[in-house]
Amino acid sequence: MAFELTRDDLRDLVRGAALLGTGGGGDPSIGRTLVSEALRDGRSVTIVSPDELDDDDYVVPTAFMGAPSVLVERLPGGTEAIDALRALEAHTGQRATATMPIESGGINSTIPLFVAARHGIPVVDADGMGRAFPELQMETFAVYGVDGPPLAIADERGDTAIVDTGSDNKKMENWARVLTVQMGGVSHIAAYGMRGADIRRTAIPGTLSLALALGRTLREAREQHRDPMGALKDALADTLYERGDVIFTGKVVDVDRRTVEGFTRGRATIAAFDGDASCTIDFQNEFLLAKVDGRTRAIVPDLVTVLHMETGEPITAESLRYGNRVHVFAISTPEMMRTPEALRVFGPSAFGVDEDFVPFEQLPVGSHSSVVPEKEVAE
Amino acid sequence: MAFELTRDDLRDLVRGAALLGTGGGGDPSIGRTLVSEALRDGRSVTIVSPDELDDDDYVVPTAFMGAPSVLVERLPGGTEAIDALRALEAHTGQRATATMPIESGGINSTIPLFVAARHGIPVVDADGMGRAFPELQMETFAVYGVDGPPLAIADERGDTAIVDTGSDNKKMENWARVLTVQMGGVSHIAAYGMRGADIRRTAIPGTLSLALALGRTLREAREQHRDPMGALKDALADTLYERGDVIFTGKVVDVDRRTVEGFTRGRATIAAFDGDASCTIDFQNEFLLAKVDGRTRAIVPDLVTVLHMETGEPITAESLRYGNRVHVFAISTPEMMRTPEALRVFGPSAFGVDEDFVPFEQLPVGSHSSVVPEKEVAE
Repeated sequence: MAFELTRDDLRDLVRGAALLGTGGGGDPSIGRTLVSEALRDGRSVTIVSPDELDDDDYVVPTAFMGAPSVLVERLPGGTEAIDALRALEAHTGQRATATMPIESGGINSTIPLFVAARHGIPVVDADGMGRAFPELQMETFAVYGVDGPPLAIADERGDTAIVDTGSDNKKMENWARVLTVQMGGVSHIAAYGMRGADIRRTAIPGTLSLALALGRTLREAREQHRDPMGALKDALADTLYERGDVIFTGKVVDVDRRTVEGFTRGRATIAAFDGDASCTIDFQNEFLLAKVDGRTRAIVPDLVTVLHMETGEPITAESLRYGNRVHVFAISTPEMMRTPEALRVFGPSAFGVDEDFVPFEQLPVGSHSSVVPEKEVAE
Repeated sequence: MAFELTRDDLRDLVRGAALLGTGGGGDPSIGRTLVSEALRDGRSVTIVSPDELDDDDYVVPTAFMGAPSVLVERLPGGTEAIDALRALEAHTGQRATATMPIESGGINSTIPLFVAARHGIPVVDADGMGRAFPELQMETFAVYGVDGPPLAIADERGDTAIVDTGSDNKKMENWARVLTVQMGGVSHIAAYGMRGADIRRTAIPGTLSLALALGRTLREAREQHRDPMGALKDALADTLYERGDVIFTGKVVDVDRRTVEGFTRGRATIAAFDGDASCTIDFQNEFLLAKVDGRTRAIVPDLVTVLHMETGEPITAESLRYGNRVHVFAISTPEMMRTPEALRVFGPSAFGVDEDFVPFEQLPVGSHSSVVPEKEVAE
């Protein structure tokens, strides 16, 4: 059902979006800042459900592309994504009737909100990843037959390019990526333009309202001194994601992080507060694989998230630091992201992880999974 | 005046174009092969003079972009430039009434001929460099106010991109360059679409018919055992280029050539047959600067060309080899390429050459400039 998103909702929404971003998706404060400005003076954005779209509505997702760390240094003027959308509209000769996110994440859940507020169109409550992924072909849209091209890409000067690689979404990603690098590491894009009927068939529905609900859940649990992890688990039960649980709790004792070909890659190691148990998390922008004592506990495309134990705030792979006291919380991904055709595009092998995907709920529970020292619980 | 170009003309045309390519512009045999196929069965291409265009004719130059050495290994299917032209036509909503070269050179003088033969449009007898240059902003079109963007670029699969950087031709070059690298080092483009009136104002006229005449001159001199260099000098006298002369003759004794950032850079050294005189030629794809005994004899944008002494065939910087017996022949560039605004775009400093431009005809003649050993003359 359609609802109005106001400035007051933003903080909750980006918190939940950052959680679904599974360590990637960029610093939520950037997206919040951008949209907050657009929603001043009581303005709101209309969020519509996929069910409310007409079959022939023309919906164009908008997004930021590139290195979030660069975006921090070069705050977007805000109009880049709109420039991209307009360039695509001019190229296709079609006016977008709505926009939507391509992924859930701190930044890319918010870019379409900004575009919508400025462009005077609604945002569809759905996206094409239901989490964050590093590349543009990793979309349920693509898995279920919607072409990414033509893609429009804009830089901070309003200069644009149109990439048309037919049905080759990976090639579209490659071309857009080199243009993004040429633009200084940051660009904004409009791609995967599609009909309302295609969205109902290919998108993960409800992810914006889910992000809002999860972000609110975490805040309220903190305010009411309830267990945020239990609240999160309960909040997921009635959604497409269904299952979520703490798989480890401890202190970050090592983060090996390097930038390779524009990606942030590495491994974080977390030690239990009692005993010898430890958890490793491999990441490439997003957290991909969590193991406890060497045994796999959650693997992409299931969601591996890391939250501050004290505040319940999600932590990105970029900002994870030695000494952070954290919960590692796994979430089962929606079924449409676990099909064989989906796993071919964004299963473990797409990230060079040499393990088969096993649903999180079928993996064994570790013995040291969620031991919290008593003084922590008391806080 | 309009004329029909036939298959029989091709060999002369590419020879002359390679000469104007001043060491760059790629292997002439590739362009010849491509067009030869399109002109089978007595078909011809109409070459029209800029004077014959209507003011509002829409002319779209077409070209190859990238590393000629890669093109040799990956022969174009031929349709890439047409794909680029069609993509630009679709994007702008305008049908091209003619095409033309962006530069004179072994390959890029021929690409528009192929496009014209297949697309059923004429080729304008003009281009935007009057020689070859390595980058897309180095155009008289650009110098005199025609924007390069929007540019269309196509790969060998028919996938395309549109680059629209407004009036920023250098940025257009940068974006098209990274796309070309991503495409494997070779692309085809359509850019600098303009009106007939703009061509008359900004293009170097008559360069295709000049290439044909110069190529024919070299062949006929060889066939008639006349001095090809003298014939070349005579042939240039009545053209916009006016002056040409041998500035050195000798044997290539060293070629220091390396590939830097996609460009072929280096220096060739030529030793006189008698005495100690030597000539150095610095190049970046094209020959840029010729010195005899350390004194500058010709400098970009004037044309430095190198021809086989025995055959009168132009030699590219890529194919120049130790032991080649050569004439170094300098040609004064047309006046519209020597203006202050032109020199800012493609004068010596644009190539990192730390010398002011001095017209070739004002530079001193070296004492060892054209000594040919008697046995060579006798051949």
